[in-house]
Amino acid sequence: MYVHVNAAVSADGKLSTRRREQVRISGDEDFARVDRLRAESDAVLVGVGTVLADDPSLVRFDREHRETVEKSGVPTRVVADSRARTPPDAAILAGDAPTTVLASEVAPSERVETLREVGASVVVAGEDRVDLTRAFDELESSGVEDLMVEGGGELVFSLFEAGLVDDLTLYVGSLVLGGRDAPTIADGEGFVDRETFPRLSLDGVERLDDGVVLGWSVEEQA
Amino acid sequence: MYVHVNAAVSADGKLSTRRREQVRISGDEDFARVDRLRAESDAVLVGVGTVLADDPSLVRFDREHRETVEKSGVPTRVVADSRARTPPDAAILAGDAPTTVLASEVAPSERVETLREVGASVVVAGEDRVDLTRAFDELESSGVEDLMVEGGGELVFSLFEAGLVDDLTLYVGSLVLGGRDAPTIADGEGFVDRETFPRLSLDGVERLDDGVVLGWSVEEQA
Repeated sequence: MYVHVNAAVSADGKLSTRRREQVRISGDEDFARVDRLRAESDAVLVGVGTVLADDPSLVRFDREHRETVEKSGVPTRVVADSRARTPPDAAILAGDAPTTVLASEVAPSERVETLREVGASVVVAGEDRVDLTRAFDELESSGVEDLMVEGGGELVFSLFEAGLVDDLTLYVGSLVLGGRDAPTIADGEGFVDRETFPRLSLDGVERLDDGVVLGWSVEEQA
Repeated sequence: MYVHVNAAVSADGKLSTRRREQVRISGDEDFARVDRLRAESDAVLVGVGTVLADDPSLVRFDREHRETVEKSGVPTRVVADSRARTPPDAAILAGDAPTTVLASEVAPSERVETLREVGASVVVAGEDRVDLTRAFDELESSGVEDLMVEGGGELVFSLFEAGLVDDLTLYVGSLVLGGRDAPTIADGEGFVDRETFPRLSLDGVERLDDGVVLGWSVEEQA
């Protein structure tokens, strides 16, 4: 499975303000780029923190482009949600597009049941946190070849830690949000040992809207 | 006075690891670029956090380039240090280049005296924190026309907050450091009101070493 992380950040590397309030960082050209990326994906993944903060529906994609790249149907929406905290009335569960929740064994069974009742598939992998490697194997078994990840920073750090990221694209916008507690694209504990820093290879640099899109592929870890 | 902030960050926007350990983010081409920027500056400013974490000497600059741009002498080194915590044996106080410490009225007088004894000029401006606007006026009166700022994130956020930044350049390196507590180029409290977000204009995008240098000018605040 090919895993592509995409996000928009401010010039100082923030996904949003410290209040987790969404900010319009990019513009129409970047929105169109994101819609094409979703169209190329079999599934689109976010962390539950993003669901709770932004309530995204993740249903928009470029339908014409999807035909061009010969993908059928619509992208499955996926939430990494160890404790099954996704609210049953979340936008990501509404509408016709299928939704999969990746949970762990600590997720209360009544919450898992509720999510199944409202139509979600629930994959349980891992004891107290989602075992992302196992969960991704399950996604791949169900036919997901191209997975797009749209944040947040806790999930993306865990993916880098597990060596599961293939590509990273960032739209860097022309504004400053600041804040030592504002979220970035890779939060979590952070790497401290230089042997473990994920190394990237810069593939593309493209000006778009009033910012720039940087694209990297992740180098094989030693 | 023209204020130019420059730093090297990881792809995920971090200046260093969460342990504040310096990481080689850029390479020789970027070091040469920074040496030219210093050569174009009358003074180079860092926050005391950077002095305590990295103990930089800030004496290196491109001497040939300095002649070309017709600057005389060497860049003055400046520390924003409200409580005068710069250790008397810090590298930034050693050597022949002059050093100015920007302190506030809460700085213990014995520490201020010690810094003066080891040769630093101390400017006191502000009650419990350095009043950066007043301190910058003092620097300007002493002949500083071009000020380069090399971090850290607490100082740079305060400069943006006070509307004192003219230019921002970031070398974005091809590695991931991660960490919700790792420093970024604009930390501090963070902006929350969209009316107050500093807006930038992207002037330059240049591939350098295995990363990219992004250059912005700061737009006039409303």
